[in-house]
Amino acid sequence: MQIAIVGLGLLGGSFALGLKAKHNNYRFIGVDYSAEHAAKALSLHLVDEVLPLEEAVKKSDLIVLAIPVNAISRLISPILDFLPENATLVDLGSTKELICKAAHKHPKRGKFVAAHPIAGTEYSGPEAAFASLLMNKTMIICDKEASDAASLKLVEQVCQDLEMHLRYMDSAAHDLHLAYVSHLSHISSFALGITVLDKEKDEKHIFDMAGSGFSSTVRLAKSSPQMWGPIFTQNKKNVSEALDSYIKQLQSFKDIIDKDDEEKGKELMLKANDIRRILG
Amino acid sequence: MQIAIVGLGLLGGSFALGLKAKHNNYRFIGVDYSAEHAAKALSLHLVDEVLPLEEAVKKSDLIVLAIPVNAISRLISPILDFLPENATLVDLGSTKELICKAAHKHPKRGKFVAAHPIAGTEYSGPEAAFASLLMNKTMIICDKEASDAASLKLVEQVCQDLEMHLRYMDSAAHDLHLAYVSHLSHISSFALGITVLDKEKDEKHIFDMAGSGFSSTVRLAKSSPQMWGPIFTQNKKNVSEALDSYIKQLQSFKDIIDKDDEEKGKELMLKANDIRRILG
Repeated sequence: MQIAIVGLGLLGGSFALGLKAKHNNYRFIGVDYSAEHAAKALSLHLVDEVLPLEEAVKKSDLIVLAIPVNAISRLISPILDFLPENATLVDLGSTKELICKAAHKHPKRGKFVAAHPIAGTEYSGPEAAFASLLMNKTMIICDKEASDAASLKLVEQVCQDLEMHLRYMDSAAHDLHLAYVSHLSHISSFALGITVLDKEKDEKHIFDMAGSGFSSTVRLAKSSPQMWGPIFTQNKKNVSEALDSYIKQLQSFKDIIDKDDEEKGKELMLKANDIRRILG
Repeated sequence: MQIAIVGLGLLGGSFALGLKAKHNNYRFIGVDYSAEHAAKALSLHLVDEVLPLEEAVKKSDLIVLAIPVNAISRLISPILDFLPENATLVDLGSTKELICKAAHKHPKRGKFVAAHPIAGTEYSGPEAAFASLLMNKTMIICDKEASDAASLKLVEQVCQDLEMHLRYMDSAAHDLHLAYVSHLSHISSFALGITVLDKEKDEKHIFDMAGSGFSSTVRLAKSSPQMWGPIFTQNKKNVSEALDSYIKQLQSFKDIIDKDDEEKGKELMLKANDIRRILG
């Protein structure tokens, strides 16, 4: 099988490395608008060769889009236009509703599978890729009834090769839930990073006084703006609503602290403790 | 040396275990208002015997307060009242200004050392204790000029035995910085936990769709309300100010998303990325 990886960053690179580990006869063609990333991906053996997009697509059985979600939305229709007869296109974007809409009316919609792997780190670029990133992670496939049986089956098989757990969901429901369990966490972390950096001009204090709790809550503030900006834009309505609820909760905490209402504060924290049931 | 550990939870228990590992001739007396915790601490060999507070203090060379900060504030003066001639009292509370104030005018103030170990986990109780919790962590000693040389030296020696890194700071500065690099993280996490639990009635979605980013940002929501309520109250002014800045940052993100201002959003995220320099 010949596979085109469009976007040679953490996710695209890890996808290729994970599959290579299972199938040493698969061939990987890389596509990246950054010549530097492309060269790096070749030298790290993430892919076997690098080609321009159209050429790569035309030579491949499976095309994997591992680029920011706005680029996925923009490229999906042109790529479907020149997709070979028996090839399949899959995207790995973190939003799904607008991406599915972008493919919706295309005559080759069936060749497209909308997928979202729940996997990542706060690092990005080809150097961040590693073969086990996707292993044991969840792959959410959206609006599967819009994909042809053969294309769906191919993507499912690839996910099984990567030892991923498959889940199926409507693209609108996907975006709503992800706003809460992923996108909101990222904004909470970005905002925390800025708040603390703004205050702590003498950064030595941060090093010495910040414990593992701070590192844990602020870790996602290292995430890529190029990747996350378009996610927030594409999932604007849900993310804005989630942020609204979050700000209200924080305001409740502030009011409780300002009023010395320790009992009410403990009630709220006990409610939050309920997350133990879920996270273990 | 005979050491009284007042509060047989994660911190008190770990303090005892860590020192025991270095000095098998030290004797530990436990104090806990919960008979269940006391029994558990004995059975886990965190301490060698359990006694009522006054009795334990009177038999000890070093008394360690590992209880919620409101209880520390309340007990510090009565304990100093019956502290033996050559004994030293140290507290491990997460706030320092009000605690130092509570000891300020006591004739035996010099026997007291105000300390804060930057260490902890989201778990609590005697079962959560482990010998290496404090190893390689920072111990901040506050207002050290108010402590007698001998008492300060004893506490510094114990910290060195525990392989901790010593730092010194004014108690008011401590509380201001901790509001940003610790207390705010906890509130951000508690509020995130509640926001997501409120929305996701069908919790199966959380299990399947939440990645490691969510776990990381929400981890502190498992923290003990009994411990954290009094910290927020004692550090009210600073925590309220930090929360105010944090809410403003989140509101900026929301406005940017609502207005589709991706450029401004990327600017903010790039600013947050600067945390990489600090966290590595």
